[in-house]
Amino acid sequence: MKTALDFLLAARRSEIGELERLENTGELVVTIARFVHALQRERGMTNIFLASGGRRFAAMLREQTPECDTFQTQVLTAFEVLSDEGHAVRNGARLFNRIAVVLDGLHALPQLRKEITRCSVAPHDATAAFSRLVAGLLAVVFEAADSAGDPEVSRELVALFHFMQGKEYAGQERAHGAALFASGRVDAAGLQRWRHLVDQQQHCFDVFHEFAHPQLASSLAASCPAETLSRLEGLRQIGQSASATPPREALVDEWYECCTARLDAMRRVEDILAAHLRTVCERKIADARASLRDEQAALGPLHHAPSAPSPALIGPQLGRSVLDMVHEQAQQLQSMGDELEAARTALHERKLVERAKGLLMAHRHLNEDEAYRALRQMAMNQKRRIGEVAQSVLAMAEVLPRSVR
Amino acid sequence: MKTALDFLLAARRSEIGELERLENTGELVVTIARFVHALQRERGMTNIFLASGGRRFAAMLREQTPECDTFQTQVLTAFEVLSDEGHAVRNGARLFNRIAVVLDGLHALPQLRKEITRCSVAPHDATAAFSRLVAGLLAVVFEAADSAGDPEVSRELVALFHFMQGKEYAGQERAHGAALFASGRVDAAGLQRWRHLVDQQQHCFDVFHEFAHPQLASSLAASCPAETLSRLEGLRQIGQSASATPPREALVDEWYECCTARLDAMRRVEDILAAHLRTVCERKIADARASLRDEQAALGPLHHAPSAPSPALIGPQLGRSVLDMVHEQAQQLQSMGDELEAARTALHERKLVERAKGLLMAHRHLNEDEAYRALRQMAMNQKRRIGEVAQSVLAMAEVLPRSVR
Repeated sequence: MKTALDFLLAARRSEIGELERLENTGELVVTIARFVHALQRERGMTNIFLASGGRRFAAMLREQTPECDTFQTQVLTAFEVLSDEGHAVRNGARLFNRIAVVLDGLHALPQLRKEITRCSVAPHDATAAFSRLVAGLLAVVFEAADSAGDPEVSRELVALFHFMQGKEYAGQERAHGAALFASGRVDAAGLQRWRHLVDQQQHCFDVFHEFAHPQLASSLAASCPAETLSRLEGLRQIGQSASATPPREALVDEWYECCTARLDAMRRVEDILAAHLRTVCERKIADARASLRDEQAALGPLHHAPSAPSPALIGPQLGRSVLDMVHEQAQQLQSMGDELEAARTALHERKLVERAKGLLMAHRHLNEDEAYRALRQMAMNQKRRIGEVAQSVLAMAEVLPRSVR
Repeated sequence: MKTALDFLLAARRSEIGELERLENTGELVVTIARFVHALQRERGMTNIFLASGGRRFAAMLREQTPECDTFQTQVLTAFEVLSDEGHAVRNGARLFNRIAVVLDGLHALPQLRKEITRCSVAPHDATAAFSRLVAGLLAVVFEAADSAGDPEVSRELVALFHFMQGKEYAGQERAHGAALFASGRVDAAGLQRWRHLVDQQQHCFDVFHEFAHPQLASSLAASCPAETLSRLEGLRQIGQSASATPPREALVDEWYECCTARLDAMRRVEDILAAHLRTVCERKIADARASLRDEQAALGPLHHAPSAPSPALIGPQLGRSVLDMVHEQAQQLQSMGDELEAARTALHERKLVERAKGLLMAHRHLNEDEAYRALRQMAMNQKRRIGEVAQSVLAMAEVLPRSVR
């Protein structure tokens, strides 16, 4: 029969196994981040290519596609590895379902590219197709982050997910702004959408700051030259000014370059975040292995005895020290559990806000931006977190008749 | 390369794997429930045996110990099986740590029994030792319930855990009441503890009612004859009356029998709950297997092709149906996730309330009952769940200086 000591060590081994799994999850996320960046670039170029009737960016686009394919292959290989692990995968049903959505989108990509080359697809539809694909990839990252069993790593993953999501809103802003500059006019819906994309970036980066290691949180600000950011702000103001002006091709280019410089800087931040995540995992694995060795050493000959130790061997002192170790481990697990809940709450908050937004849009006929602002206002008025308000909105909907939902 | 279809099926297989795992978890919990009941009986008998200076219940106690040992062996075997699964165990670190605590307690049990036989241990200390052991076993059930990935099974496990916890408070009430009847006097602290045990039972059974299948929720009321319950209520009133009276041995016996009849009835309810849990798991596994077969059949020859299907084979119609299935699965997983969160919230609420209680006890010098009532009152005043209030109390403590905590 196994003893308390065996289970103390088994708990430690579980901890190490979970950390090793998270190290692999980190690698998967980084692989996805690279592919997402390539897709964002391709989306941006496609936008200008299509808006110019195929005149501009044709050569850049031809170069971008193979780069995209390389990263795609890496992502597919990572998915393959994951599916080979089968039942050991945490959160398997959700994760594999998200991957199925991505694979379905990737299946349609060659056809989309053919239509883009022929200029037989509207810029808006092409953008939407790329954005759906990126959303699918981010949903995989979300599920991967949601399954993390270590609080420190979970915080890093929550920070990284929100950073990637914020970067994607920045990418959508690049496409949206480019289209508006190219058309030379901004209607109310276009303006609202633009503001929404800026708001959402801010919210994502706020959560990123909350969860990222302090040293890394500042790297976002440091990554992009201040003049790029102030130029971006200036261009936003020009683009969002209501006065109708003719299409401004020069502004399109300046906007595109400015946004691209910012996105590329963010991509470098992702690499810094990924490297830090790897370091954290390695350090924690090393720490947990050292604890395991210490525990094994402290238990010494006891642990190597195949049968239950004789009572003579467990003096009160040694018996006490085993129980001490068990309680120490319990306390450590307890505080880890608390931190983990905090990280999970932030992730689920995002999900709740998205769904509450959808509900308000359908039910109160608001657009996305208005729905988000309504939630934020309620949260400020009630001095509650936006996630709590979103939960109340969803709970209220449960008691509404189905027809009203 | 694997396709969307492969991942659709992999997600389904993960679901089946999780359900099979939960079926085993259910068996573990039932094994623990049987052992806990035997320990509760032994604790009750020990109390009267020690209080009577070894005159009473000696024969019953001799019979009870081997029964206890049989169930203990079953629990240890179940733990053994679990530890052999190693890394595949969800929540492994916490679960194994809890098991280590239990094994440490079991290690001390033979010595405790020797001291009981010799009447060389105070009734209160013996009760406390048994209660700690039961608490350790319930903590294992808690972690097992907390790792459930299926909402319906998770609800059943949350209901079962709260039922077992409520039954344990009822068992502690049996011991507490018996000691007070035997001593013939009730001081303020004893009275408060008694009321607390009754309150806690009520709270646990409320949560049980919230989460148990409606048909089963009523089985609790039906399991115990109404006359037993009204007799119990009458004895509580006698016992809790402040007037000091001499020890009443006849009342001790009546109290003990009445409580025991109720606890035995609860044990039968546990078996009904366990049988239902098994049925739910089996039905869900059968459903998921049927879905898997349907999906495999719908995808037909595609799935059996080892390489990626040729575009000619995926017509838009068939391609559509795959994506439909993926989205249907996503929606199903989404609503499962929501329900799962609700069940998890109830479990964590319990943990938060326990810790907020401890904090109030230490910081505001309240006893356990006062602390619980303070939390309940705050929740009523603020019209919030008691778990939310507990969370606020804990969050507040974070900002207090360490010395005040």
